[in-house]
Amino acid sequence: MITEREVFQAAENYDSFYLYEEEGIRQRIRTLTGKFPGVSFLYSVKCNPNPEILKTIAGQGLGADAASKAEVLKSLDAGIPAEDIYYSSPGKTDRDLEETLGKCTLIADSVREVERIAAIAGKTGTEAKIGVRIHSNVSFTGGKSGASKFGIDEDQFFLHLPEWKNREGIRICGIHVHLRSQDLDTERIAAYHRSVLELAKRVQEELGEPLEFMNLGAGIGIPYALSDQEVNVDRLAENLQASLGKSFSGTRILIETGRYLVGKNGWYAMKVIDKKISHGTTYVILHSTLNGFLRPSLAQLIRTYAREEHPAGSEPLFTKTDAFQFTAFTREPRTEQECVDLVGNLCTATDVIAEKITLPRLEPGDVVVVNNAGSYAATLSPFAFASLGRPAEIMIR
Amino acid sequence: MITEREVFQAAENYDSFYLYEEEGIRQRIRTLTGKFPGVSFLYSVKCNPNPEILKTIAGQGLGADAASKAEVLKSLDAGIPAEDIYYSSPGKTDRDLEETLGKCTLIADSVREVERIAAIAGKTGTEAKIGVRIHSNVSFTGGKSGASKFGIDEDQFFLHLPEWKNREGIRICGIHVHLRSQDLDTERIAAYHRSVLELAKRVQEELGEPLEFMNLGAGIGIPYALSDQEVNVDRLAENLQASLGKSFSGTRILIETGRYLVGKNGWYAMKVIDKKISHGTTYVILHSTLNGFLRPSLAQLIRTYAREEHPAGSEPLFTKTDAFQFTAFTREPRTEQECVDLVGNLCTATDVIAEKITLPRLEPGDVVVVNNAGSYAATLSPFAFASLGRPAEIMIR
Repeated sequence: MITEREVFQAAENYDSFYLYEEEGIRQRIRTLTGKFPGVSFLYSVKCNPNPEILKTIAGQGLGADAASKAEVLKSLDAGIPAEDIYYSSPGKTDRDLEETLGKCTLIADSVREVERIAAIAGKTGTEAKIGVRIHSNVSFTGGKSGASKFGIDEDQFFLHLPEWKNREGIRICGIHVHLRSQDLDTERIAAYHRSVLELAKRVQEELGEPLEFMNLGAGIGIPYALSDQEVNVDRLAENLQASLGKSFSGTRILIETGRYLVGKNGWYAMKVIDKKISHGTTYVILHSTLNGFLRPSLAQLIRTYAREEHPAGSEPLFTKTDAFQFTAFTREPRTEQECVDLVGNLCTATDVIAEKITLPRLEPGDVVVVNNAGSYAATLSPFAFASLGRPAEIMIR
Repeated sequence: MITEREVFQAAENYDSFYLYEEEGIRQRIRTLTGKFPGVSFLYSVKCNPNPEILKTIAGQGLGADAASKAEVLKSLDAGIPAEDIYYSSPGKTDRDLEETLGKCTLIADSVREVERIAAIAGKTGTEAKIGVRIHSNVSFTGGKSGASKFGIDEDQFFLHLPEWKNREGIRICGIHVHLRSQDLDTERIAAYHRSVLELAKRVQEELGEPLEFMNLGAGIGIPYALSDQEVNVDRLAENLQASLGKSFSGTRILIETGRYLVGKNGWYAMKVIDKKISHGTTYVILHSTLNGFLRPSLAQLIRTYAREEHPAGSEPLFTKTDAFQFTAFTREPRTEQECVDLVGNLCTATDVIAEKITLPRLEPGDVVVVNNAGSYAATLSPFAFASLGRPAEIMIR
């Protein structure tokens, strides 16, 4: 947790700001790399592309899972070598492909994209070593998978593979499977890993040569609600080791991870600007709430619409209605508690981040901090709204 | 409606872009100013702060309803005179107040804000002519109003007024009431206007002098769904004229309007980048969907959670599940129709703007255009997501 000193120091200059803790991120990286020897982790840049965070990631030797051309370039800028950058997303434009060819490993997301990469690489007389994102027939939970906008359906992939093996301009040397982020069920993730390894074996057989890399995707969920349990990373690592056995000894095993590294190492702080009582409700008005960190307000919004008390997640927009915890930092010690609504300074009634929450009595100049703000936070918020501008992002070293 | 030529011309340079139609905006302004003689309209800058749009607004002589310091400054830059800019929002910081004092009319949003303005103006030895936003005891629909983060409760206002009348640093010379945007019921808006006028009369009596201005707020809704009916602006104008009668002859009557002017004069266009079939579903992959224009994807998201088939709106995030219509612009004429899912190029399954929609067969290079994109569109979208960048905004003249 961040300290009062860190919060108030930043609050001298900013009315709303993110705080990231570098050492916490490093620690999470060490946890993963220590427990999963032989596995290379890729940082999901989209969850937080802050340049200082990317440098921290690069400094620890992680690669990048980039979701756009800009993320490939940001990863290079941060010092991640091209051979450790994998660019996987649907809907890459020709320009995206042309300008990233040779700067990363392209993961083709559709049949047409394989063809387009072959054509573009062919024009320059080079051969692109690519991966293919496969939409496996087995779902994340082990059932039959449904339709997806991501990747190439497994059956279609195997149908095209014989032809692609001899296609000029490309060489397929890896696969990428990703079906779900933010799962907390260790056994389920482990079973998913086994399922991807089965698929990878079949790809190797049909390809007639070892895969150079295989990206297991999935990531590792983090506890958002107080009732959530951490994934058992030790058991996940043991399971994967056992499943791998002696197979894939020449293959680079990749796992994507974003929120596991940074999610809990980020906080969003909002200064109390005003306070009022209306018809019995006490409103604490904070700076840049919905517009500075969208997800907590979206959780409130979905709660008002949802059929169930605990609606399912829609990552990365919505995880749970109780996914965030609030801490009051008061300028002077206060023992008195107060039940308040925490709202933002936008001219919309949807700009609410907590209703009927009990906190130490807040006054203007105090600061409210929300946790779980390291991933899908700054990057996913509508900064232009009301022209209030982008909150500061501060790395604590 | 925009033309094929305009769409494909912009598509030469951009993969996703907004198109705004200047003449359409001018026409809507002329409609309002023609039908409501004696009323001054304020443009709600937050609904679309694009500089070209602000210049168009300024050119037609409208004032500005600014929701932040930055919006005050943008309005001045666009050529709107300080006396026509009203700055009304909760949670103004001291710095916001200091830096806008004298550049607009400040509308105090809380008891504490009245005090802060008085203190700040007092320090500089000036007297700030301010308005106060009142949270009236009567709700928009004519019932008893509940708690609100906006304004000062009517009873509190009248309690403080005697003291504020003699307070150094401020002079209260106007009021602002705003309870709901995007209402389509002409009679209900008219009744709301009458209710505000009643309140204004009482304020004048207690103040002991005529109000210099009164902002009726509310705005005028626009049809989003195909089944929606336009507000009857003629009847609304007649009603207001009748309600005003000979009262308030020396008072400037203000009405805020945002989406009525620009909502239907904006379109968002996304190029088709890829297309695939997965397990029987055809996906058309567009450029910068959720990240370029959040509201349609949010409508899809809320539809998956909502209890009712027609959930109530939460402006400006969500209006209706069927609030948007899609038009296919194909590079060559195609008669064949196809049932598709329209999705974006983000790495998240929530990036969907239309499911099971029937359109002319789409191929890469074609463009899909969504309407109702003039208000709460560019300004309310998470441009930083996946570092895909901000869509272009093009004014058609």
